[in-house]
Amino acid sequence: MDMALEQARLAYESEEVPIGCVIVYDDRVIGRGANMRVTKGNVLAHAEIIAIDEACRSMGDWRLEDCTLFVTVEPCPMCSGAILQARIKEVVFGTRNPKAGCAGSIYNLLDDDRFNHKAIVTEGIRQEECAEIMRSFFRNFRR
Amino acid sequence: MDMALEQARLAYESEEVPIGCVIVYDDRVIGRGANMRVTKGNVLAHAEIIAIDEACRSMGDWRLEDCTLFVTVEPCPMCSGAILQARIKEVVFGTRNPKAGCAGSIYNLLDDDRFNHKAIVTEGIRQEECAEIMRSFFRNFRR
Repeated sequence: MDMALEQARLAYESEEVPIGCVIVYDDRVIGRGANMRVTKGNVLAHAEIIAIDEACRSMGDWRLEDCTLFVTVEPCPMCSGAILQARIKEVVFGTRNPKAGCAGSIYNLLDDDRFNHKAIVTEGIRQEECAEIMRSFFRNFRR
Repeated sequence: MDMALEQARLAYESEEVPIGCVIVYDDRVIGRGANMRVTKGNVLAHAEIIAIDEACRSMGDWRLEDCTLFVTVEPCPMCSGAILQARIKEVVFGTRNPKAGCAGSIYNLLDDDRFNHKAIVTEGIRQEECAEIMRSFFRNFRR
């Protein structure tokens, strides 16, 4: 989660909503992403999507079955869906997103028997730091 | 939907699950995609994601607010989430996906007051053709 927070700080420095993500396989980081939605002018530039894209390229496979994804903020529907599609084994997130979170807040897409995959979810890791960087961002840039 | 079916046929020719998508803005096609998940070894290579990526590049914006997305099969959670995130105005799909569809089947992510966007959804356009190309694919390639 330390490295995911480092990615969140990179987003912050670009005046982007500070969310960061890393994907780990076999103790190795195979994907990382900092939210760059505005900078890239592309809705797909969420931290998780960038990290999943890099991880698929690293692995040469659309399946990321034995991977763990660490992200500072609870994934939105798009990113939760991408986690399901990639069959990522485990998701660890820092703080909840009550407005769009789909790993427990609005829905829990990652734990639904009707889909062909479920992920193990752990939340609240480095919660205070993950939440504080978000609060600081909205204080400074969204006035 | 004719052009979305053309994209689905391109996917079929590559031995990919035959789903196609186009995005229209102001009577102009600004994005198109054929499912290429296996060919590209990337979970993000669903038809809708490829089309949204191209549309964001065409528009130079992460918002696709006045656009209509045509897709042959009901979007999965990832693609429904991407549609929400991009604030696409209208979604037209051909045939339902009872196993993963999130625009009416398992969930309707596109019509939920708790999210900050909703899309107008029309389904069943060219339903029989959109379903038949899928059935034909699974008959031929998944034996």
